[in-house]
Amino acid sequence: MFSVLHRRQFAIIAGIMQTLFIVLFAKYVKYIDPLDDSRRVYSGTDYPLFQDVHLMIFVGFGFLMAFLKRYGFSAVSVNLLLSAFVIQFAMLLRGFLTVAFSETGLFSIGIPEMISAESSCAAVLITMGVLLGRLTPVQFLLLAFFETLLNVVVEHFVFNYLHVNDSGRSLSVHTFGAYFGLAAAMVGHKKNVMEMDEHGGIHHSDLFSMIGTLLLWVFFPSFNAAIQEPEDARHRAIMNTYLAMASSTVTTFMVSSCVDTLGRFNMIHIQSSTLAGGVAIGSAANAVLYPYHAVIVGVVAAILSVIGHAWISPRLEKSLHLFDTCGVHNLHGMPGILAGMLSIGFAYFYEPESYGKTLYHIYPYWIGGELNGDRENVSQAQYQAIGLLVILVTAIIGGLLTGCILKIKIWNQVDDPDFPHGEMNYYAQSDVNFLSKYKHAQEQQRLRDREQMHEIY
Amino acid sequence: MFSVLHRRQFAIIAGIMQTLFIVLFAKYVKYIDPLDDSRRVYSGTDYPLFQDVHLMIFVGFGFLMAFLKRYGFSAVSVNLLLSAFVIQFAMLLRGFLTVAFSETGLFSIGIPEMISAESSCAAVLITMGVLLGRLTPVQFLLLAFFETLLNVVVEHFVFNYLHVNDSGRSLSVHTFGAYFGLAAAMVGHKKNVMEMDEHGGIHHSDLFSMIGTLLLWVFFPSFNAAIQEPEDARHRAIMNTYLAMASSTVTTFMVSSCVDTLGRFNMIHIQSSTLAGGVAIGSAANAVLYPYHAVIVGVVAAILSVIGHAWISPRLEKSLHLFDTCGVHNLHGMPGILAGMLSIGFAYFYEPESYGKTLYHIYPYWIGGELNGDRENVSQAQYQAIGLLVILVTAIIGGLLTGCILKIKIWNQVDDPDFPHGEMNYYAQSDVNFLSKYKHAQEQQRLRDREQMHEIY
Amino acid sequence: MFSVLHRRQFAIIAGIMQTLFIVLFAKYVKYIDPLDDSRRVYSGTDYPLFQDVHLMIFVGFGFLMAFLKRYGFSAVSVNLLLSAFVIQFAMLLRGFLTVAFSETGLFSIGIPEMISAESSCAAVLITMGVLLGRLTPVQFLLLAFFETLLNVVVEHFVFNYLHVNDSGRSLSVHTFGAYFGLAAAMVGHKKNVMEMDEHGGIHHSDLFSMIGTLLLWVFFPSFNAAIQEPEDARHRAIMNTYLAMASSTVTTFMVSSCVDTLGRFNMIHIQSSTLAGGVAIGSAANAVLYPYHAVIVGVVAAILSVIGHAWISPRLEKSLHLFDTCGVHNLHGMPGILAGMLSIGFAYFYEPESYGKTLYHIYPYWIGGELNGDRENVSQAQYQAIGLLVILVTAIIGGLLTGCILKIKIWNQVDDPDFPHGEMNYYAQSDVNFLSKYKHAQEQQRLRDREQMHEIY
Repeated sequence: MFSVLHRRQFAIIAGIMQTLFIVLFAKYVKYIDPLDDSRRVYSGTDYPLFQDVHLMIFVGFGFLMAFLKRYGFSAVSVNLLLSAFVIQFAMLLRGFLTVAFSETGLFSIGIPEMISAESSCAAVLITMGVLLGRLTPVQFLLLAFFETLLNVVVEHFVFNYLHVNDSGRSLSVHTFGAYFGLAAAMVGHKKNVMEMDEHGGIHHSDLFSMIGTLLLWVFFPSFNAAIQEPEDARHRAIMNTYLAMASSTVTTFMVSSCVDTLGRFNMIHIQSSTLAGGVAIGSAANAVLYPYHAVIVGVVAAILSVIGHAWISPRLEKSLHLFDTCGVHNLHGMPGILAGMLSIGFAYFYEPESYGKTLYHIYPYWIGGELNGDRENVSQAQYQAIGLLVILVTAIIGGLLTGCILKIKIWNQVDDPDFPHGEMNYYAQSDVNFLSKYKHAQEQQRLRDREQMHEIY
Repeated sequence: MFSVLHRRQFAIIAGIMQTLFIVLFAKYVKYIDPLDDSRRVYSGTDYPLFQDVHLMIFVGFGFLMAFLKRYGFSAVSVNLLLSAFVIQFAMLLRGFLTVAFSETGLFSIGIPEMISAESSCAAVLITMGVLLGRLTPVQFLLLAFFETLLNVVVEHFVFNYLHVNDSGRSLSVHTFGAYFGLAAAMVGHKKNVMEMDEHGGIHHSDLFSMIGTLLLWVFFPSFNAAIQEPEDARHRAIMNTYLAMASSTVTTFMVSSCVDTLGRFNMIHIQSSTLAGGVAIGSAANAVLYPYHAVIVGVVAAILSVIGHAWISPRLEKSLHLFDTCGVHNLHGMPGILAGMLSIGFAYFYEPESYGKTLYHIYPYWIGGELNGDRENVSQAQYQAIGLLVILVTAIIGGLLTGCILKIKIWNQVDDPDFPHGEMNYYAQSDVNFLSKYKHAQEQQRLRDREQMHEIY
Repeated sequence: MFSVLHRRQFAIIAGIMQTLFIVLFAKYVKYIDPLDDSRRVYSGTDYPLFQDVHLMIFVGFGFLMAFLKRYGFSAVSVNLLLSAFVIQFAMLLRGFLTVAFSETGLFSIGIPEMISAESSCAAVLITMGVLLGRLTPVQFLLLAFFETLLNVVVEHFVFNYLHVNDSGRSLSVHTFGAYFGLAAAMVGHKKNVMEMDEHGGIHHSDLFSMIGTLLLWVFFPSFNAAIQEPEDARHRAIMNTYLAMASSTVTTFMVSSCVDTLGRFNMIHIQSSTLAGGVAIGSAANAVLYPYHAVIVGVVAAILSVIGHAWISPRLEKSLHLFDTCGVHNLHGMPGILAGMLSIGFAYFYEPESYGKTLYHIYPYWIGGELNGDRENVSQAQYQAIGLLVILVTAIIGGLLTGCILKIKIWNQVDDPDFPHGEMNYYAQSDVNFLSKYKHAQEQQRLRDREQMHEIY
């Protein structure tokens, strides 16, 4: 009986969730009317940027995590599942939070809401990178549920009450996702997937992973600029990210060669640290005024990230048994904190006059704006610091709690003896949750399964 | 002598076609003048959507069909060949049909014509999915010729005479392409490619296939919205497709887990049924007014598609010997018919006032419009039904006839003993029409070929 | 001591360069103000085209070169390194050249400058294609430095002093990059990488390569149109490239089948010659007025390119020992020269009245324009010819000199006995500059390295 629960729990939970989504969409959601909204031609300006972000989330993140030989297909598929789940859930949550319930009882969604929903996916996928290979699909689904719930609420508080500037959501997405995952990994789930993976790598899984790296690399400027307006803030966000990515990449190769005794490059640095510049510039991408500031941020982020991979991760693994499958701490964690610190620094040192009218789009609570704010350099910098702290604390607490929930034996666990997926490592070693697609193989499997079932009952 | 004909028939047919295209382009085609046309800045609004569709056709469909171990390169290459052929041919055909021959005797092409040409490619590529591995390149080229000819004519009739709303061309592309291919497969070409393919799958071909799935997934909203205007119809088409894709994906994982005795997922469902929502919402994507309707459509389409893969396809195979290599019936066929039925339902039940002025863009023959139409809910719904029927009947008859033509022994056939490609399964088993690229290998091959030729004559 | 220099020289050179970039960006570069610039909404019109080009450079070119079994990861990674290096360097160089030093001593960068920087990358990556597998990363970095320096200066001269029309930069990028690389390969670096690569190909490396081919195929219209304005010139550039790509592809399959005794296709033709149409139409893509001219250009380019692969390359290899790893001469070299000749022909034969006001955007020095030019058909054609010659001569001289510099023994060389990368062919044969990513493997490697080091000193 217990075994049936294990075999059917994914279907039941996913079914309940999707039914709930239908009910909530029916009761509370309508589309914006783009003809009423004179601001912009969505399909002309916002939609291409949305598509770049969309490609990052579904193809970029998916393939970035495909480097494990035994989990390649699982990584890409679970990435797809979680993203499709989170975009619906985050849209609903954010609608409930951001729209004061109007007399009609409805809130509207449009392309900007799609972009925000996708960024909530990114947080979950970053967390997935920490735990890759150590959770079952049902656990990942629950993780996505709890993390999105907390993430959307915290982001709403940080953006709309603390009025923190976080242009590319480096705080609310990258930092939050990374520390949420690391905290969850602290609680349990300590298996070292890498050691299980066969010794050495094979060529192709690393090339698949590079598809992910490069798509994230190419579209990072769109990610950091997608929700920015007006035009000059968006333009700065694009340019700053572009320059930070470029300098970050050259620096990654340089430092990677430095930390190797023979001056060679390390693949994992290339696959990950080259992206650190985009994370680090993220929070202030719309605010940075001087190109060379962006270039320097990229250099510092890459140094930090490579050092993380080379020295910090192995130490965390040894001393805390904190295992981070994709090295998320070095790509999203530390560069995310760096982003937060830079957003403090830029708020503190920059002259507000340089922004013209855009100032209130970047720092909406600055003195003299429509919100009747009272911020100036020091106080805005303080709020940026508070925002960073709030993100870190909630992510860690949320991650610890979620990690505890996921350990409960009622959920399918990897290597759960009651859920005999270990025996059917048939398709690719450890792509345990997937059947082969070939029909006659499937038939044979069915026969074998049926025999197995008889033994189980 | 016969053998020379077989070896050269591809070059001859392709050469004749391409020469014909040059002549027809020279006599009848000119470019639109975008400065004369005050409607829009093409490169700003239409071109990004075109590029999304372009990526779907050439990369998405190509890699979606790369899952067979022995036909990976063939699938991607023939996909490229047929698309390049069809975009020229469809542009010419559609030009002849849509533009009443003006006094200059010329018709104009621009970015909207490129988008339409690409959708004609999609129909051919869907048909190719049914027959993958069972036709030679020359047969595929002939198939593309006959199918495009019929498809463009039928689409013109359904769109411009029946005034059917088919926003993402789910009827004229997905349904038509699927049933055309299934009908052609009925006539002959009954070899089971899957059984020939070595037992079980290998990891990488399925990851390549996921590149295709994800690109189609990501850009489906653009496909359904590309030819829509004005802004609010395009916006609805984007949003409805997006929501249908998301709910379709969660549901696919749920139902796939349900139909397996051990609650695991089936790869082929992930690679295909996750896209069913985009097909099913396609015909009415511009018309659906409520987000939850789109969410429900995605759920229903995914259930239908997974059931098709799990139960209907094996039965069709056994009873009718109807073999469908890529499971096209479950992704494009049944969801396409569902799309047609939904377009009937939405026309019947929706209140026309909700659309404002956009009404006549969606249903141009509705009462009160510029065309002096006389349609209202019931009659528009009737015409939607007639459109679906016309598509189905013409696709099946066209497919049967084309299947018969392709069986004629004059064309190269897979396993044709006179065309000894079977012996050179040298590069990858069964990528029979491709040589290795390596020079010295090529030399050796040439020598062997020459010996072979002596034996043949 | 010498050995330490070899092991650290990459890090030192990359470090110096990146530091220099920071200083120069700090002293001379600022962002454009998009609100001041009333011309256009950058994120709405230019940015989507930039992203297409961006994807071509970083993903397209990278994967196009991933077909070698032993250099797949190297090719993609070095592609990333060089591009990230060149975009910074080219932006600075072009800034110094194009902006007369204003009183502020600053020049501005924006999205158009990003597009130009990416095209400078393309030139370097084309050269890299010739020399793939025969240079170490440090040599590639030096190559990128010298080539970009020369390329930006020559392009500036050809565009701004000779007023040559080169819409898609087929002259300044494709032709320059190809002959620069071939000249450098003449001087030394004559190893035949293909022969070293194991006999025959493996399926997956060719499918990875097709990712590159197809991305370049899909986005070639954007590449040729990205820097074009106004709208009608951009529209023509898109349409002409699109048609040339399509006819080029059908023709490639046709001719490839013709040159094989058994009528089969050759993979390398599919991977490369299908793109030749885009290169050949490149220089005049904004100028060609009749669709069928573009179709014919595609046909001719494909014939030329396939003949190059089948007959010219093997002869160059035998007689001159000129080895061209990716067959760059057949994709970028000869079609580039064809592009130059076509740009002469179109300038000579076309009637200037057909362009309306756009004429001076295409040929800025034509008689009657703002620059008080004196060109008409004959003189413009002459200048186009001079431009082609200047490009060819400077590319060949620059390539020869750079080839000599790279041969100096002070730089790491492939198979340099002092730099023992040959022994660690551990990850994938010959991906010599990359370590495995797996931690415990890395540890073991370190131990072995340390022993090795003791032997070295």
